[in-house]
Amino acid sequence: MNFQELIKTRQSTRRYSDINVEKEKIQLCIEAARMAPSASNSQPWTFIVVDNPELKEKVAVETYGSVVSFNKFVHQVPVIIVIVIEKTKLITQVGAFIKDREFPLIDIGIAAEHLCLQAAELGLGTCMLGWFNEKPIQKLLNIPKKKRIGLLITLGYPATDDPLRNKIRKTTEEMSRLNGY
Amino acid sequence: MNFQELIKTRQSTRRYSDINVEKEKIQLCIEAARMAPSASNSQPWTFIVVDNPELKEKVAVETYGSVVSFNKFVHQVPVIIVIVIEKTKLITQVGAFIKDREFPLIDIGIAAEHLCLQAAELGLGTCMLGWFNEKPIQKLLNIPKKKRIGLLITLGYPATDDPLRNKIRKTTEEMSRLNGY
Repeated sequence: MNFQELIKTRQSTRRYSDINVEKEKIQLCIEAARMAPSASNSQPWTFIVVDNPELKEKVAVETYGSVVSFNKFVHQVPVIIVIVIEKTKLITQVGAFIKDREFPLIDIGIAAEHLCLQAAELGLGTCMLGWFNEKPIQKLLNIPKKKRIGLLITLGYPATDDPLRNKIRKTTEEMSRLNGY
Repeated sequence: MNFQELIKTRQSTRRYSDINVEKEKIQLCIEAARMAPSASNSQPWTFIVVDNPELKEKVAVETYGSVVSFNKFVHQVPVIIVIVIEKTKLITQVGAFIKDREFPLIDIGIAAEHLCLQAAELGLGTCMLGWFNEKPIQKLLNIPKKKRIGLLITLGYPATDDPLRNKIRKTTEEMSRLNGY
């Protein structure tokens, strides 16, 4: 599978089977994230794999509530990965201050996508969740209060009736330019 | 090449040859970025390919200065890609406000890494640059003042004396946990 094919294989999976994910496959996904590049090689992340069924269920509940119902599929998934944002190196912090730009989130995006692409290659489905109740999840997983959670990722085998969808995207002309905006 | 191999192939290239990059290869890199996922499929990015030699040189100069000299390799590179951050969809903006989290940077990281991984598969070298003079580059490329630049990416064939380096990373135990922080 070449990279263009892998990109097409990765999609946000919101229907999961009840098959458990092999530990080795979870480990390969974590390994892909571990090797991700980051500003000044700060690697400003901790990945928490939540696969204990009861704990996972409690975390899942914090991704939806009475108002938000679009994340209800999360209760089907056997594994949730929680990405905690860690401090960047001092040089990156200084650069971020001088240039007014927050590097860790770019780094989190890169590492999260490494994980999702690796999962896709292994036949697994993922969905990145940016909407969740941060404080309860911090409590459930003993994450220090000061540390922010960057993203949650669901991980599991897609349901058999979850076909590969066509991706709806802006055209090349809409999203790119040559030698000027 | 499987995904773990592709990850190892991608590295921050800071030594480039003077061979020009084929248009088709640049287009494939842009295509990889175009298909990247983003929060609510907002695709909050515009990729500007700068390959005009004079313009490219002017942009290159804005990545280093009298104080900062670590980006001087940029003048060797035939192509610089400038990623402009665009607005996310309203639903994402509302979510970002309620949950106090900035999604576009995560999205920019994902799309940028898609581009870099595609480049690596094609034998090209890249380096993401988070340090640059934003305002002069906005002027050079007619980017509206209000719009922020997320990242610059250098793109070109690596110099023949730029071997694949081993990646120095935190151990798996340092960067991941099971069922709790």
